Amino acid sequence: MNYPNGKKVLNRETSKISEARRGMSLENDINVTNEDYLKADVAVVFKKPTPVTIVNVDYPKRAAAKITEAYFKIPSTTDYNGIYKEKYIDFEAKECHSKTSFPFSSIHPHQIEHLRRVLRHGAIAFIIIRMSYYGKDYLIDAEDFIEYYDSSKRKSLSLEWIKENGYLIKNGYQRPCDYLQTVDKVYEL
Amino acid sequence: MNYPNGKKVLNRETSKISEARRGMSLENDINVTNEDYLKADVAVVFKKPTPVTIVNVDYPKRAAAKITEAYFKIPSTTDYNGIYKEKYIDFEAKECHSKTSFPFSSIHPHQIEHLRRVLRHGAIAFIIIRMSYYGKDYLIDAEDFIEYYDSSKRKSLSLEWIKENGYLIKNGYQRPCDYLQTVDKVYEL
Repeated sequence: MNYPNGKKVLNRETSKISEARRGMSLENDINVTNEDYLKADVAVVFKKPTPVTIVNVDYPKRAAAKITEAYFKIPSTTDYNGIYKEKYIDFEAKECHSKTSFPFSSIHPHQIEHLRRVLRHGAIAFIIIRMSYYGKDYLIDAEDFIEYYDSSKRKSLSLEWIKENGYLIKNGYQRPCDYLQTVDKVYEL
Repeated sequence: MNYPNGKKVLNRETSKISEARRGMSLENDINVTNEDYLKADVAVVFKKPTPVTIVNVDYPKRAAAKITEAYFKIPSTTDYNGIYKEKYIDFEAKECHSKTSFPFSSIHPHQIEHLRRVLRHGAIAFIIIRMSYYGKDYLIDAEDFIEYYDSSKRKSLSLEWIKENGYLIKNGYQRPCDYLQTVDKVYEL
């Protein structure tokens, strides 16, 4: 196919070649994976829409309502939740560009509070961290994360900590971030 | 505050006066209730943000990013989900202004599909219908709803059907739509 205007079509075709994955976002990989879970009827997990405060909307005749003024809101929850094997699952996903550590500042305090809450009510809760430099995704159990977050004087997870306490997620073609395979092992589902 | 362009700002400040509740939306009542559930650590249930497609964002210096063009998207899931007593719960809430029936067209086919899916995975799933004229809120179990939706030739739930098959939700002051009390009874939690 030819794109005479020189524009690339987003999120298409590029996933054919596994080399190309390097440039794709974790969010995109998780969305593709979730769609495949949905198609295979394995789980129902969705990313929540980005929260925005809508200030102004135009309602033109014969056209779709157009939001003309809105602002991003700080999320009060994690980005993903759903149901898997009758369990409520809840997680946040973050890309980390540092080679050596994952700063706590990447996760908003509201989201950590949210993880504490859902844990108290029996959720399977975790954080997916993509260490971009190494091209590796880790599942960090929310309880492990919070224990360290509360007790450590550090302001980040070191790469060593992540390798020791996290669980590597397999990246397949159909499921570029196949986190449920890891969930099965970690939570013995 | 003055809005010179005559447009209203959505969902603000109206929750202060209890008399004012009469005019308040089901969405607002559920949000207030969910906040109280959260405060009492009874359940963690949130309304998902309204899904929008963001087309244009301005990044002014020294000010918050401003979305200047965005459009409403058709939701692919229900509006509410969360965890209660270790169970995944999922529901849609609709206000009905008709005195006699609740039209199926009020619920998007995507949302009905979503309810089917989460049911298959073991969710507690339902629809809350507010019959505005009577000032009454009913919990309709999603299985009951879908069974009728699939088998009936009608294109709505009659008031009689709702009264017979639905469960009345108590409306308290702190919890203006105390649906979990009803959930406890209906699902024997």
